[in-house]
Amino acid sequence: MQSTINNQQSTINMNIILASTSTLFGGQYLEYLRPQLGNLFDGIDELIFIPFARPGGISHDDYTAKARQFFSSISISVRGLHEFTNKEEAVNSAQAFFTGGGNTFLLVKTLHELGLMDVLKQNIESGKPYLGCSAGSNIGGINMKTTNDMPIVYPPSFDCMGLVPFNINPHYLDPNPEIRHNGETRETRIKEFLTQNDIKVIGLREGNWIRRINNKITVEGSELTRIFEKGKEPYEITSGTEL
Amino acid sequence: MQSTINNQQSTINMNIILASTSTLFGGQYLEYLRPQLGNLFDGIDELIFIPFARPGGISHDDYTAKARQFFSSISISVRGLHEFTNKEEAVNSAQAFFTGGGNTFLLVKTLHELGLMDVLKQNIESGKPYLGCSAGSNIGGINMKTTNDMPIVYPPSFDCMGLVPFNINPHYLDPNPEIRHNGETRETRIKEFLTQNDIKVIGLREGNWIRRINNKITVEGSELTRIFEKGKEPYEITSGTEL
Repeated sequence: MQSTINNQQSTINMNIILASTSTLFGGQYLEYLRPQLGNLFDGIDELIFIPFARPGGISHDDYTAKARQFFSSISISVRGLHEFTNKEEAVNSAQAFFTGGGNTFLLVKTLHELGLMDVLKQNIESGKPYLGCSAGSNIGGINMKTTNDMPIVYPPSFDCMGLVPFNINPHYLDPNPEIRHNGETRETRIKEFLTQNDIKVIGLREGNWIRRINNKITVEGSELTRIFEKGKEPYEITSGTEL
Repeated sequence: MQSTINNQQSTINMNIILASTSTLFGGQYLEYLRPQLGNLFDGIDELIFIPFARPGGISHDDYTAKARQFFSSISISVRGLHEFTNKEEAVNSAQAFFTGGGNTFLLVKTLHELGLMDVLKQNIESGKPYLGCSAGSNIGGINMKTTNDMPIVYPPSFDCMGLVPFNINPHYLDPNPEIRHNGETRETRIKEFLTQNDIKVIGLREGNWIRRINNKITVEGSELTRIFEKGKEPYEITSGTEL
């Protein structure tokens, strides 16, 4: 077993967290993830923040300042990717990455237009630590076709990094039978996705995250996780289950 | 006034309803719109149903059967657009159209790939009656960038018919302060759209529809309607207000 893992480590060397959300209801920014970050960012003293998802239209500078404030509390300095003239060189020189949430369409459009989606992927697959929250987790999936976001801009492609062999639906929300409204539930939407695509979808409730260390991928956090696969009834898995 | 309208009718001759939803909570399919349809489809005995949005992955045949069942009760026969080999000819020969709800990405992708978006627009702008519900209303707007749907497929363009000079957000839903969840509210999403686009958005609550008769565009129905414009606070308008 050990030797198998070691063999595969020569090609897959990865250290990532893909979280449903940055902030729990009533909580502070990234606070619930703090216990995980010492392990993820072990030995790191600077990371690059990718602010392109711009939640609520916040500026790149303001969004980076928000990330910087949190990471200063764990002695990691933060530079915004938008600050670099040569962004590809910045990604290649970085120690680690954090992509914040916001609008996935805006994030994916910007990364593709700057030619950075593959560069980022290659750097993460060389073992550099990566933290994604919400939209930043969507781009760790195979494609962005299970985002909840509004398509406010048109990306040149929906393809993402595929750091894990499935798609993620962040902020997964159970149907609320009390809502007197005929918009689709989240489950209906994901089932529609499966009529057009044969890709497993991880319905990641707030409080949960996906942890990948080399070849081992688990789901972690306080909640059950709902899994959707083509031709199967959705099912739930517990924290710690391997994916 | 009369002469102005008559002059403009020579270029803009339109008779459309763009509804938030097909079905009110607890109601039957299209039932709440029934009182409007005699006026919209006056003199029509057959319409073409556009089933491409496929809610829940339903087949084109099954979806068309559902529309057919309702319209038989008002003596209008229904043919599904998917039934025709030459779909452009079918649209050009049709008396009227109805596009049902479902997934807007799937609908827009299919219409663009079949080369039908502009053909449909030209026919509706020649005065043929058009009913859209949900996704079928989104395609009446300038583009589909304010849909609520999941991007389960990648359309070649987000552009729509622009039958009205604004975008529509169907199933508009007010923020629910009781939800302990950090996904974006509908209002946040539309405000993000306005950071990237300068297009008015009509937040159309269930029970409401947009009525266009030639140059006159009004919002109708049982609820207030919320309007979003770049650089303005959102505001509400009453049923019957001209847009």
